[in-house]
Amino acid sequence: MSNEKLIEMLKSCGAIKFGNFVLTSGKKSNYYIDIKQASTNPRILKEIAKNMKKHVKDHELIAGMELGAVPIAVALSLETNIPFVIVRKEERKHGTGKQIEGENVNGKKVLIVEDVTTTGGSVLKAMEILKKEGAILDKIVTVVDREEGAKGRIAEYGLELIPLVRASEF
Amino acid sequence: MSNEKLIEMLKSCGAIKFGNFVLTSGKKSNYYIDIKQASTNPRILKEIAKNMKKHVKDHELIAGMELGAVPIAVALSLETNIPFVIVRKEERKHGTGKQIEGENVNGKKVLIVEDVTTTGGSVLKAMEILKKEGAILDKIVTVVDREEGAKGRIAEYGLELIPLVRASEF
Repeated sequence: MSNEKLIEMLKSCGAIKFGNFVLTSGKKSNYYIDIKQASTNPRILKEIAKNMKKHVKDHELIAGMELGAVPIAVALSLETNIPFVIVRKEERKHGTGKQIEGENVNGKKVLIVEDVTTTGGSVLKAMEILKKEGAILDKIVTVVDREEGAKGRIAEYGLELIPLVRASEF
Repeated sequence: MSNEKLIEMLKSCGAIKFGNFVLTSGKKSNYYIDIKQASTNPRILKEIAKNMKKHVKDHELIAGMELGAVPIAVALSLETNIPFVIVRKEERKHGTGKQIEGENVNGKKVLIVEDVTTTGGSVLKAMEILKKEGAILDKIVTVVDREEGAKGRIAEYGLELIPLVRASEF
């Protein structure tokens, strides 16, 4: 598999930890993902961007939901020279008042990136906000998919989830 | 001036707009800065990182306050291969519970980056959070300084503010 190098990097930087964990949801897990350990490391971030680049086709914009996906979106943008937008969780009360920061997404083909997908809640929210603003969406590329429902929920909207690494692979 | 190219880029992408504006503070201004127009554009973001790199000495980490400084921190990190941390505005209620995302800053020499400085409020908050966690600080590099007090307030803490572009220059 071409993602073996990335899996090794994620383990060695502590982004994937093994042990007994209780997640925020209350569920028990034998692994824990602290993806910021990877996305704040320029060497790993470059490897992530290089892997994601393969999935960029005719996209005119890259979109990342704050906060986790922002470093991924920035790195992929710098790797591909495609501008990015940041999707805010909440509408801004002050300043420009926009929920999407950056270029207008209306009528543009936008690639969504994410750091970790679990049930897909955060990605679905990003999809909804981007669609409302007229973005054309086809797929979401995520660094790690925990394989807990995101793929199916995203497919219901006719979009494809592409994980660089799946939980079942490490 | 070596920053003429950057000033031109900031104007042409719409990050610096001229006209009559009423700022959030209620103050009137004959210019408006929408820095995200620059920081979401990979060509300009690379130019920003290139300019900031000159001010990186023996720093072990780069720090950016969410959300505006994050693309700057990521780009400078990729340019210099120095890891970055994200300073959250609020402490997290769930997840890892940290206010600083990324490597431990304790005892590390940290360079703070910012997108726009005005009175310095956001930077002072970042300084305080980083210092509390043991970071060693010497300077803040900002893309644009509006020259409304940030430099003086930061100097009171013994730190230096280095703007790539000053409001009086455009």
